[in-house]
Amino acid sequence: MAKDEVKLLGFWASPFVNIVEWALRIKGIEYEYIEVDLRNKSPMLLQYNPVHKKVPVLIHNGKPVAESLVIIEYIDETWKENPILPEDSQKRATARFWAKYAEEKCGVSVYNALCKVDKEEQEKAVKEARENLKTLEMGLMGKFYGGEKIGFADLAAGWVPFWTRIIEEIIGVKLVDEENMPSLSVWFEDVLHDEILKEILPPWDKALAHNKAFREKLISEAAST
Amino acid sequence: MAKDEVKLLGFWASPFVNIVEWALRIKGIEYEYIEVDLRNKSPMLLQYNPVHKKVPVLIHNGKPVAESLVIIEYIDETWKENPILPEDSQKRATARFWAKYAEEKCGVSVYNALCKVDKEEQEKAVKEARENLKTLEMGLMGKFYGGEKIGFADLAAGWVPFWTRIIEEIIGVKLVDEENMPSLSVWFEDVLHDEILKEILPPWDKALAHNKAFREKLISEAAST
Repeated sequence: MAKDEVKLLGFWASPFVNIVEWALRIKGIEYEYIEVDLRNKSPMLLQYNPVHKKVPVLIHNGKPVAESLVIIEYIDETWKENPILPEDSQKRATARFWAKYAEEKCGVSVYNALCKVDKEEQEKAVKEARENLKTLEMGLMGKFYGGEKIGFADLAAGWVPFWTRIIEEIIGVKLVDEENMPSLSVWFEDVLHDEILKEILPPWDKALAHNKAFREKLISEAAST
Repeated sequence: MAKDEVKLLGFWASPFVNIVEWALRIKGIEYEYIEVDLRNKSPMLLQYNPVHKKVPVLIHNGKPVAESLVIIEYIDETWKENPILPEDSQKRATARFWAKYAEEKCGVSVYNALCKVDKEEQEKAVKEARENLKTLEMGLMGKFYGGEKIGFADLAAGWVPFWTRIIEEIIGVKLVDEENMPSLSVWFEDVLHDEILKEILPPWDKALAHNKAFREKLISEAAST
């Protein structure tokens, strides 16, 4: 059988690209990472993800797969070793439920905590982010969402610790509190120190500067209107 | 082996409940349908879906599964006959991609076309709904998203024909145009006339009256502010 050709279109500061890289590393799959300029979208990106024109896109033997959660299901089905989803249907459903929750609920609200610059709107965003993170905590089944090892929902939510800490530092407000969310706080540490996951995360200072600049731009735009 | 006990918490006018019922019918699974009063949420709903407090919830031998797309994956994995997802990983990814698109993009924008009562906002919502439906059309692989038979993405998007037609009638504006979306229009008809799918859809007049009353309430609320 010919060797698999695996390419990943990514952007260094995209948490959704991290998710896919984690899955590839857990599986031990060799891949070529191709950084995409999102301000000047390449013909390759437009060709392989004409619907969303976004990263990540996995290209396996010339065929593209888009959407991070769809990609990790694809990876898990294509390369069987080191399974990411559990075998049991009920547990698979639970993992998919929390993965979807992390993407849809935490994704939007944590990002809003960074983007809302009006005082009142920001307070609302912070409140919502905290509530959603508190709910996310309910899904923890042990050390990880996947039980004793990192699984599907851990990868789907795996961006939360790093980016929550970055956003907390920029806005000067705690979103995840050790007192109110003790289990989630421990999970944050476990994820941030996991050998595979931490290797893929962007450098702290670079991510901080990038998002700080983004927020400052929003603040100056709001001030000038 | 003891007989499976399958219950479904639903609400008659929820398109996401329809999706799950279609999957159960395709599989030939017997189930007890339990109508939930969404204005006065039952302890059963709060117990089985404490995170979202929404329908549908499938309860299989006492264990709940929530989120319509997660439920149909669960059904497809638990009862193997009459598969809903294809076998090939690439085709599975494509089906999941379009299912997600239908839920996230079409769900919100088609619903907004009903809910936005301010003229300008409604025009914007209609434009967005049309664009998203046009994109949805790109995913058609033949007669259905699943090729020659109804599959995962057909079920996930299966509410679109009925509810788009209901909303078009209420707002007096066409969203899916036979000229601009010829393939999607044919798919609409195929879905609306499918023996299994049409059996589960609510009565046209009841759904029309229900949503008309909902929109009139929004209009009178907007007028009084």
